[in-house]
Amino acid sequence: MTQAYYSQANHGPFAEHGLGDFELENGEQIRGLRLAYATFGRLAADKSNAILFPTWYSGTSKIVEQAYIGPGRALDPEKYFIILVNQIGNGLSSSPSNTPAPFGAARFPAVAIGDDVKAQYRLATEKFGIERLALVLGGSMGAQQTYEWAIRYPDAVRRAAPIAGLAKGTAHNRFLVQTFIDAIASDPAFDDGWYADAGRVHRGLRRHAGLFAASGFTPDLFNRRAWGGLGFTTREDFVTGFVENHFLPQDPNNLILLARKWRDADVTRGAGESLDASLARIKAKTFVIAIEEDGFFPLKDIAAEQEKIPGASLKRVSSVWGHLALFGVDPAYNAAIDSILSELLG
Amino acid sequence: MTQAYYSQANHGPFAEHGLGDFELENGEQIRGLRLAYATFGRLAADKSNAILFPTWYSGTSKIVEQAYIGPGRALDPEKYFIILVNQIGNGLSSSPSNTPAPFGAARFPAVAIGDDVKAQYRLATEKFGIERLALVLGGSMGAQQTYEWAIRYPDAVRRAAPIAGLAKGTAHNRFLVQTFIDAIASDPAFDDGWYADAGRVHRGLRRHAGLFAASGFTPDLFNRRAWGGLGFTTREDFVTGFVENHFLPQDPNNLILLARKWRDADVTRGAGESLDASLARIKAKTFVIAIEEDGFFPLKDIAAEQEKIPGASLKRVSSVWGHLALFGVDPAYNAAIDSILSELLG
Repeated sequence: MTQAYYSQANHGPFAEHGLGDFELENGEQIRGLRLAYATFGRLAADKSNAILFPTWYSGTSKIVEQAYIGPGRALDPEKYFIILVNQIGNGLSSSPSNTPAPFGAARFPAVAIGDDVKAQYRLATEKFGIERLALVLGGSMGAQQTYEWAIRYPDAVRRAAPIAGLAKGTAHNRFLVQTFIDAIASDPAFDDGWYADAGRVHRGLRRHAGLFAASGFTPDLFNRRAWGGLGFTTREDFVTGFVENHFLPQDPNNLILLARKWRDADVTRGAGESLDASLARIKAKTFVIAIEEDGFFPLKDIAAEQEKIPGASLKRVSSVWGHLALFGVDPAYNAAIDSILSELLG
Repeated sequence: MTQAYYSQANHGPFAEHGLGDFELENGEQIRGLRLAYATFGRLAADKSNAILFPTWYSGTSKIVEQAYIGPGRALDPEKYFIILVNQIGNGLSSSPSNTPAPFGAARFPAVAIGDDVKAQYRLATEKFGIERLALVLGGSMGAQQTYEWAIRYPDAVRRAAPIAGLAKGTAHNRFLVQTFIDAIASDPAFDDGWYADAGRVHRGLRRHAGLFAASGFTPDLFNRRAWGGLGFTTREDFVTGFVENHFLPQDPNNLILLARKWRDADVTRGAGESLDASLARIKAKTFVIAIEEDGFFPLKDIAAEQEKIPGASLKRVSSVWGHLALFGVDPAYNAAIDSILSELLG
């Protein structure tokens, strides 16, 4: 089931870039690292129109494409060359689920946001010869990667738009993500990651989906049954049909690898400096975008980081979908994001 | 361990009132229902100074006493006769944990908020001859019982102070409580409630504690480590030492019985009328008290009910402890509550 889910048929077309044996921040390595990516539009001769957009937790380049890219939208393939990069561990790029024994499954090494960004930098430079991106943006874990880009490679990022995410997770966010991990790992069928059939871990994946839904959407979404427009009826029908349906086909080890990466995200790690100093090194024109009702990354925490970034603007968007408006289900959110990104790119 | 926890030594002194075989709203019965209660102060000859305060989720009369009662406080035993009643299922009153086979443990019947309030009414009238209470108040599930009192027995409640709770749970609150239940029930050691040793269900109880902590306190409590004054260090130390420590000695069947009662609380159930009509029947002078940062019972949901209660006032309290300020750990919250209750009683 997992292999069928992470397929070209489901999430493609996507291409792959091989990076060879890749050393990670923690000293381990991924043998024959592959980054899966999809591109839209044409790279200008002067390579000035490239945009890079990495994926969020449990998402692939396909949902990002569907939610953010199209003619007439801010990310218009008629104008820009847009690279959607799949995070390490998301099931399309090298992941626990697609790495053979002995290095796959529970043995796949821990990956940090900085590892992804280093690999993405090599993709941009080696594969496309792009030394400077017109825009790096992403939502949630994509925002974590965006911050890492802007701080690690300040001269390579002309503009940055982190959406609904932080450069350094708060204690509460780390705690919340740990409860997601525990919900999966506590399923006896998970077996420390050595399950033979990912589908047997469905109870843990369902509990994980429940926690994700209860805190990732707003209370009002449930209280006003705002999912009605999508054809769902009861809360149970919505959570099963929308959230469990999203997570059940995915690989538990992949999700836990991503969740740990999310939990531990911190642009200062290894740099030996304060968060203030890290954020001060950003040279990109930065629009920090927050969802006002976000329960994962509250507005006030996002605003506290934005204030430390030279010249950055805080842009607020409102949605009854909360953090998970990122998915593109709220037309008003989509329009607001397009307006903000158009201003940034203009 | 469970028996030692629910003891006079730990939670007493408390008395018991026997109500005989007690028919529940769902048609089942509790044989030989006992309500455990503690009283403070002396009942006036005209019985005009009686206050009733039922317990919240996982709490007993002891924590209510410690957090709300004392000379010089609003609930002053020098002035009032205060009855703290333990909810059915809390381990002191009749509960899954203290009911012998065949009716105990997982077989203990489901109990509704209305059942508690009917039993409490009999305690007040039969045991003490009190036909009208000067004040009924409670926090969280105690607020659910307070609303039930004021609507079921409008002439018996002169004043009401529901704190951080709702007369009818929202869809989101029901969902959140369901995740708490699932966290315990998913532990294989729970064994559908037929565990031989409650202590073996500690993994489920710990996960439950984690979810309770992640949503019951505010993000800022974690981000600012506002627990420092209580002697805790890291987040893990705080969650283990404060929250797991609270739940681990408790009985899983008791907690699940209480959580289901919380989840399904609805003053309109069985009354065949709308929530508006139910709330309109309240005759008590009512101060509806909300904690502004409450993640379990958001301010706006509480305010929406308050507006439907004739003559009711909305009183707002702020605390970095969020919903769990109820526990009495925040001196500023305690002072604010005392001020509000003094005004109501004055």
